[in-house]
Amino acid sequence: MRIALLGGTGDIGEGLALRWAYHTDHEVVIGSRDPEKARTKAEEYETELDSRGVERKVTGFANEMAADRADVVVLAVPAYHAKDTVEAVADRLDAETTLVTPAVGMKRTDDGFRYNPPKAGSVSQLVARHVPDDTPVVGAFHNLAADRLANLDVELDLDTLVVGDDGDAKQNVADLASGIEGLRALDAGPLANAAEVESLTPLLVNLAVNNEGMHDVGVKFE
Amino acid sequence: MRIALLGGTGDIGEGLALRWAYHTDHEVVIGSRDPEKARTKAEEYETELDSRGVERKVTGFANEMAADRADVVVLAVPAYHAKDTVEAVADRLDAETTLVTPAVGMKRTDDGFRYNPPKAGSVSQLVARHVPDDTPVVGAFHNLAADRLANLDVELDLDTLVVGDDGDAKQNVADLASGIEGLRALDAGPLANAAEVESLTPLLVNLAVNNEGMHDVGVKFE
Repeated sequence: MRIALLGGTGDIGEGLALRWAYHTDHEVVIGSRDPEKARTKAEEYETELDSRGVERKVTGFANEMAADRADVVVLAVPAYHAKDTVEAVADRLDAETTLVTPAVGMKRTDDGFRYNPPKAGSVSQLVARHVPDDTPVVGAFHNLAADRLANLDVELDLDTLVVGDDGDAKQNVADLASGIEGLRALDAGPLANAAEVESLTPLLVNLAVNNEGMHDVGVKFE
Repeated sequence: MRIALLGGTGDIGEGLALRWAYHTDHEVVIGSRDPEKARTKAEEYETELDSRGVERKVTGFANEMAADRADVVVLAVPAYHAKDTVEAVADRLDAETTLVTPAVGMKRTDDGFRYNPPKAGSVSQLVARHVPDDTPVVGAFHNLAADRLANLDVELDLDTLVVGDDGDAKQNVADLASGIEGLRALDAGPLANAAEVESLTPLLVNLAVNNEGMHDVGVKFE
């Protein structure tokens, strides 16, 4: 499978790129608005993997090129860039592409972090409005601490929650998630349930702030 | 410590009553709008505990009487009864009473369960508007499956999240939570962070519905 990580140069994108390249055989393509940055980062990921004895080709392109002919496109950009980014690649998406959205709208207040969804109800639902009608959208990977995900020395032992209206696309993304060692995918239902999944992210940040030793806290459902 | 469980005849109240009576030495008082029902349930809990070799006095009263002279009052009623119940006992509350609110507003849709907070932002904040000014309010025990909590054969091994603006009251409730074997209390910050805690409950219901073997699912933060 060819996985394109748009915004794959930073934050959650780096972690997913490294983990998929490390734990699976899927082709990993890094996208960025700046193709030079994408290439540089892809090389950094290759070097990181090589240092662990894993020889893997990771390529970098402008987002549009990265999305082209990808089986799965992950919109690993901040929530406020989600709409623009998906619109920029929309003509590369079709019924055969699954669009995955991990972004969460949050705002910081004096008391802590708040869930701050767009008018569509959730970032996942906002994104679904801007893809071609036949492109399935799946929400996943919202609740993973980026540093922990990107550190291949750390065993994850975490859950991620998957929402979507297309059963096959959702299963495909659940399988991709499970391909990462120590990550379990759970089904949180249709895309309309995305807000409750996304709002877990500000909660995790609040727990990290208010409890010792929880800097990169994640979640398990038992 | 004297703990009054208003609405302690059903759902989450039963589980907390049994667990506190079983695992701690705190005095457990059951409240209900119907004092006869409170007494009957209190006797049932005593019988259940006795069958496990634990001889404990559990008493039952009308909510107002149960709240009287309690150190901690738990508002273990459905969200739509929270305001009425706290108003009914408000004259029994003072600076020495901690009011604990575990209720969550949810609505069921065709797709799944949604968080449905009151205009105050969360049930916890709504409740805080209706207690005397000097009574500290702490949100806790939102995300525990009632059946699992009430079944003393089941080891919990779960987390509960505590929110509140009064540090001492919050610590007191965290200690009460930790008194229950297998339950860990984590600090989710001030009461203004309650919505992200409460909205975890519909998410848990959605996971229970969409995944095998997760009927009584709870959460751990790791």
